[in-house]
Amino acid sequence: MSARAGIVVTGTEVLTGRIQDRNGPWVADRLLELGVELAHITICGDRPGDIEAQLRFLAAEGVDLIVTTGGLGPTADDMTVATVARFCGRELKLDSRVEDMIADIVARLMVRFPNVDPEAIREANRKQALIPEGAHVLEPVGTAPGVVVPGKPTVIVLPGPPRELQPMWKMAVQTPAVQEAIAHRTAYRQETVRMFGLPESALADTLRAAERGVTGFDRLEITTCLRRGEIEMVTRYEPDAADAYANLMALLRERHGDDIFSEDGSTVDEQVARLLTGRWIVTAESCTAGLLAARLTERPGSSAYVAGGVVSYSNQAKSELLGVDPALIETHGAVSEPVAEAMAAGAMRRLGADTAIAITGIAGPGGGTPEKPVGTVCFSLMMADGRTVTRTLRLPGNRADVRERSTTVAMHLLRRTLVGDPG
Amino acid sequence: MSARAGIVVTGTEVLTGRIQDRNGPWVADRLLELGVELAHITICGDRPGDIEAQLRFLAAEGVDLIVTTGGLGPTADDMTVATVARFCGRELKLDSRVEDMIADIVARLMVRFPNVDPEAIREANRKQALIPEGAHVLEPVGTAPGVVVPGKPTVIVLPGPPRELQPMWKMAVQTPAVQEAIAHRTAYRQETVRMFGLPESALADTLRAAERGVTGFDRLEITTCLRRGEIEMVTRYEPDAADAYANLMALLRERHGDDIFSEDGSTVDEQVARLLTGRWIVTAESCTAGLLAARLTERPGSSAYVAGGVVSYSNQAKSELLGVDPALIETHGAVSEPVAEAMAAGAMRRLGADTAIAITGIAGPGGGTPEKPVGTVCFSLMMADGRTVTRTLRLPGNRADVRERSTTVAMHLLRRTLVGDPG
Repeated sequence: MSARAGIVVTGTEVLTGRIQDRNGPWVADRLLELGVELAHITICGDRPGDIEAQLRFLAAEGVDLIVTTGGLGPTADDMTVATVARFCGRELKLDSRVEDMIADIVARLMVRFPNVDPEAIREANRKQALIPEGAHVLEPVGTAPGVVVPGKPTVIVLPGPPRELQPMWKMAVQTPAVQEAIAHRTAYRQETVRMFGLPESALADTLRAAERGVTGFDRLEITTCLRRGEIEMVTRYEPDAADAYANLMALLRERHGDDIFSEDGSTVDEQVARLLTGRWIVTAESCTAGLLAARLTERPGSSAYVAGGVVSYSNQAKSELLGVDPALIETHGAVSEPVAEAMAAGAMRRLGADTAIAITGIAGPGGGTPEKPVGTVCFSLMMADGRTVTRTLRLPGNRADVRERSTTVAMHLLRRTLVGDPG
Repeated sequence: MSARAGIVVTGTEVLTGRIQDRNGPWVADRLLELGVELAHITICGDRPGDIEAQLRFLAAEGVDLIVTTGGLGPTADDMTVATVARFCGRELKLDSRVEDMIADIVARLMVRFPNVDPEAIREANRKQALIPEGAHVLEPVGTAPGVVVPGKPTVIVLPGPPRELQPMWKMAVQTPAVQEAIAHRTAYRQETVRMFGLPESALADTLRAAERGVTGFDRLEITTCLRRGEIEMVTRYEPDAADAYANLMALLRERHGDDIFSEDGSTVDEQVARLLTGRWIVTAESCTAGLLAARLTERPGSSAYVAGGVVSYSNQAKSELLGVDPALIETHGAVSEPVAEAMAAGAMRRLGADTAIAITGIAGPGGGTPEKPVGTVCFSLMMADGRTVTRTLRLPGNRADVRERSTTVAMHLLRRTLVGDPG
C-alpha cells in the first residue's frame, strides 16, 4: 500500500469562502507527482479545537504525512504551530537562531514604519520563533518559519501565502523525516482522455462493459467529469497495470472514437492554438459577445493568428460592422444560419482574414420562441477557399452556461474543421 | 450555542485540484446567512471508505447538519447516496416516482443521441432513483435528484454542478428535517462594503484605529479580501451590535469616502448596468479582446444599452474596423492614449453610440519595454457630448490578471464618469 497523506487548510477567511484556497490543490498536485496517495483535505477556521480535531481525524485514518497550511503569522489568531506541537506531544521552545533570523527580516520591512513600538515587534518575532522540540525548521520565505515534526504521522507546517508556501514545500520534502514518511510511495501513472459530443451515460455504459470485459479493470482508478461541455476521464494506475489501461482505451476508441479528441491530456484550446498557426482568424459574436475572442487570446502569442473580431450584439452592429443585409435579418431572424454565415463572411471580408467564425444565439432568459427556444445557437465557420460549416444547436443551461458552452462548441467546430474533418 | 454544520465535498477531480470547488464556499455563505456555524469543510475522492470516514468525523464532532456535494451521477464512481444511506443505517429503495421523473428528463436530453442503448439509459436512471428509506427527495434540476436524510446529524445530499446544487439547496432548507436540525441557529446580520482605489494596508490601519476608538468593535466579526482589484469588507454581528457597526462605518466613510462605492453589497456591474439605462454603449478592446463586452452583457436585458463592440487585436483591425490612422499607431505605439482615444471615437462613430470605452494595453508576458512595461494599459471613455476621460495605469499580475483587472478598471471608470464624477 502506498504512503498516504492528508492536508489541513486553516483560516477563517478560507472556511467562509471569502478567499479561495489555492494551497490545497497545489499540494495535492505535488503529492500526486511524488506518488503519495492523498486521502483527505480538511478546512477549518482559526480555532485550535477544530484544527486539533482534524489532525486527530487524519492520524486515526492512518495517514503517514499531514501537511498544514496557514496560521503562522504573528497575530493572536495564528496558532497552528502551537496546536501541532500539542497534538504531537512536544514542548514549544524558543529557538534563538530562528528569532535572530526573523528579527533580521522584520527589521528590513519595518524601515517603512518607523512608529511601530520595537517591543511589540520583538514579541511578535519571539512568538514565531517558538519551535516544537526536535522539529526541523524551514527557513522563512516571508517572515514566518515553517516546521517539520517527525513522527507517525509526520507533520509539515507551512504558511498560508502561496508564494511562501511553494518554495518551503520543496525544502520540507528534502528533510529526512518527510523522506522517511513517504518511503512507501508508489509510482503511479496518470492519463487523461477528453471527449466531446457524447453524453455521460454513454461513457458510463462503456465503463460497465469494461468492468466485465477488461482484465485488470479493477486496478484502474477512473474518475470522469463533465466540464465546459466536455467529458474528462482521468485514470490512475500502477505501472504494471498498463495493459489493462491499453485494453480500456481500445474499447473506448472502438465505441467513441469520433468523440475522443485528446488522449494526451491536451485541451481543445491547445489543439486549436496549434491548428491556427499560420492562419489569420476573425470572430463575429452576438450572444457570446466577445467570450470566444477572449478565449482565443488567452494564450501568449495568439496575436500571431488572431486578427480581431466584432461583437455584433445589436442588429445595427451586424449591419454597420459586418455588412449583414438588414433584409436578411428581417427575413430569417437574427438567430439563423443565413445570418451566421453573413456575419462570418462580413468579418472575413472586413479584415482580410482566411478563417472566420460566427456565433448568434439566444442566451436567455428572455427572447425565446417556440421555434427558437432559449439555448438555440447558430454557428458558422468559413474558410478563405469558400468552405463553410454551419450548425444550429440547442444548448442546455442558464444564460451563462449557454454563452460559455457556445464558445466550447465553436472551439470544437474549429478543431474538427481544421484537422480536415468537417463532421 | 448555535447550530453547527459541516460540509463534505466529494470528487476525485476536486481532491486532486483538477476542478476548483465552488460549492464549499457557496454553501458556507448560505450557512452563514442562516446563522448556522460552519465548523469543517472536508474534501475527499470518490471512495466510499473516505466519504464515510468524513461523515463519521463530523458526526463525532457533534454537528447538527452535514451537507454533501457531488457524486450523484449515473457512473460507478458516483456513490454518495449509497454511502450516506449506509452511514445513516437506512436501506436504499428504488423510488419509481423518482425513476419516472428522471426518465422524463433524460428522454428529452437523449433526443440528440439516438444511438445510445435504451437499456443503458434505463440502468443509469434506476441507479439514480435509489433513495434511502425515509429520506426526503429533492427534485432534480439537472438529472440527479438529491436527498435529505433526517437524523442527528441530518444529512443533505446535493449534486456537484453548481447550477443544480444552488436551487436544490433552497429546496433542502425548506424541509422539516433541516429546519429542525438548524432550529438553534443565531440570527446574525451581515453587511458588505466594497472599495476600489485604496491599498489593503490603508484599510488595515483604519481597522486598527477602530479597534481602539469604536465601542463594541470586538463584537464585529470582520473579514476583508482583495478580489478583482476591489477590496470587499464583510462584517457579521448580532443585531444588538448594530451601533458598533454604524460607528465603524462612520470612521470608514471619514477616511475612505472616495473609495467606497458600495455599502449595500451591490457590485460595480449592477451599478454600471443601472447607470447605462437609456444609453447606447460600444466597446473597443485590444488586450482584453472581448472580456469587457462579455462582462457588460452578462446581465439579461443588456441588449437595451449594449450596441456591440470591436476586438481590435491587430493593428489592422484598429484601422479597418475603427478607422484608427496607421500613422497615429506608428507615432505613439498601439498602446498609447492617442490610440485609445481614436479607438473610442472610431467605435462611437461606426455605431452611432453615445458612450464608447476603449482599452489597449500590454497583457504580457512578452511585448513590454522599459517605457511601457507589461501591465501598461490605456483606457479612454468618450461621451457623445465630447467629454473624454483617458487614463494610463500599470496593472500588476500575469497575463490573465492584467486582462481581468483591466475590465474592472473600465467598469469603475464608467461608474465614476456616469455618476458625474470624472475623478
